[in-house]
Amino acid sequence: MVLKLYDLAGAEDNIRFSPYCWRVKMALKHKGLEFEGIPWRYVEKEVIAFSKQIAVPVLVDDNKTIVDSWDIACYLESNYSQQPSLFGGKFAESEALFIKFWCETQIDPIIFKIVVLDVFEKLHEKDKDYFRKSREAKLGKTLEEFAQPNRDSVQALNQALQPLRKTLKFQPYLGGDEANFADYIIFASFMWIASISSTKILERDDSIYIWRERLLNSFDGYAYNAIKASDNL
Amino acid sequence: MVLKLYDLAGAEDNIRFSPYCWRVKMALKHKGLEFEGIPWRYVEKEVIAFSKQIAVPVLVDDNKTIVDSWDIACYLESNYSQQPSLFGGKFAESEALFIKFWCETQIDPIIFKIVVLDVFEKLHEKDKDYFRKSREAKLGKTLEEFAQPNRDSVQALNQALQPLRKTLKFQPYLGGDEANFADYIIFASFMWIASISSTKILERDDSIYIWRERLLNSFDGYAYNAIKASDNL
Repeated sequence: MVLKLYDLAGAEDNIRFSPYCWRVKMALKHKGLEFEGIPWRYVEKEVIAFSKQIAVPVLVDDNKTIVDSWDIACYLESNYSQQPSLFGGKFAESEALFIKFWCETQIDPIIFKIVVLDVFEKLHEKDKDYFRKSREAKLGKTLEEFAQPNRDSVQALNQALQPLRKTLKFQPYLGGDEANFADYIIFASFMWIASISSTKILERDDSIYIWRERLLNSFDGYAYNAIKASDNL
Repeated sequence: MVLKLYDLAGAEDNIRFSPYCWRVKMALKHKGLEFEGIPWRYVEKEVIAFSKQIAVPVLVDDNKTIVDSWDIACYLESNYSQQPSLFGGKFAESEALFIKFWCETQIDPIIFKIVVLDVFEKLHEKDKDYFRKSREAKLGKTLEEFAQPNRDSVQALNQALQPLRKTLKFQPYLGGDEANFADYIIFASFMWIASISSTKILERDDSIYIWRERLLNSFDGYAYNAIKASDNL
């Protein structure tokens, strides 16, 4: 039984930039599970209505529906416990939750300012109006006023990334010798940038750059090939 | 054989505010190891010259000398492996290293601005000149120019603490159901504040406040009693 993942897509089906969906795709690859990534757009609420969600990722495993990237990882960990562990035990899972919130409160908001206009440009035509209206209502300003794809934001992002950079000077992955879900959480945010934006964040000698390359090439270059397919190389 | 820990002290022997030493003291308590905390001042370089260090923590275990709070934790973990684990496995240890660097790059620099004048005030007379000269040379400004014990800094600290706050809404400790060294790392930075400063950082309903209370009271109130002894309650 092949799992089904509803995965946010842009104008073309092969533009897949949602960081939350990337977390799940890397987790599925880590578990060695076959899955079908179904392209989904923001306005296709009725397509995922069965999940009671209005956004993806939504994973369907036989007759079960699982939503939210963290909950999906926990589901995969307990339901596919014979496959390689995503967390490496309860203590590491607890600390991975901290890394998730670090990513979501300290990293993703800066990335959003850097890529928001790229996201808008790469969206499917039918999504553009929804995206602009919903985001501008939340932000209290236009996307153009909010966007900061500039050097200051890249600097702020690199400052916020310091703990990752320092850690990766001592070990190849956040998980230590091997990647685990903590790595995929922050790697997914880099995939958000890499799938749609040409903004350069990292220097080639940066420990984070080297780590990102390693993850781009893992699982037979799964993530690397996805960026290639999105014509953003 | 009782272990010996050289522990930074202030004007009085019972003022112990070094966050790096607090990490080690909580780790020793976690391992259930008896130790003697030897008060040490910045200018007493010759006292710890045997360790080849110019600062504490320095731990002496029989004929072995171990320095650096992280290395001491790793030493205790491997040499006292029958005692409760400080990390909970290799994956969690790897992620704890990230939490260490998060604390040191995103949290401690803000705290230092908040407490630097309190530290200076509480130092032993013989340390004051050394502390002022060495810190001002590094900072390129006077301690008074650098200090920011104001509302903006407290706000910045609370913003930087968001990932900890969110995590502790889901679980009692960073380590999950039980505290581990990741908890002690950031708790130690709160002990830095609590030992010497009257600046209020947390509201009573904050998940971090509740977590800090729990750790203050752990090991029969070891940390709580230390603050009480320092007359900073």
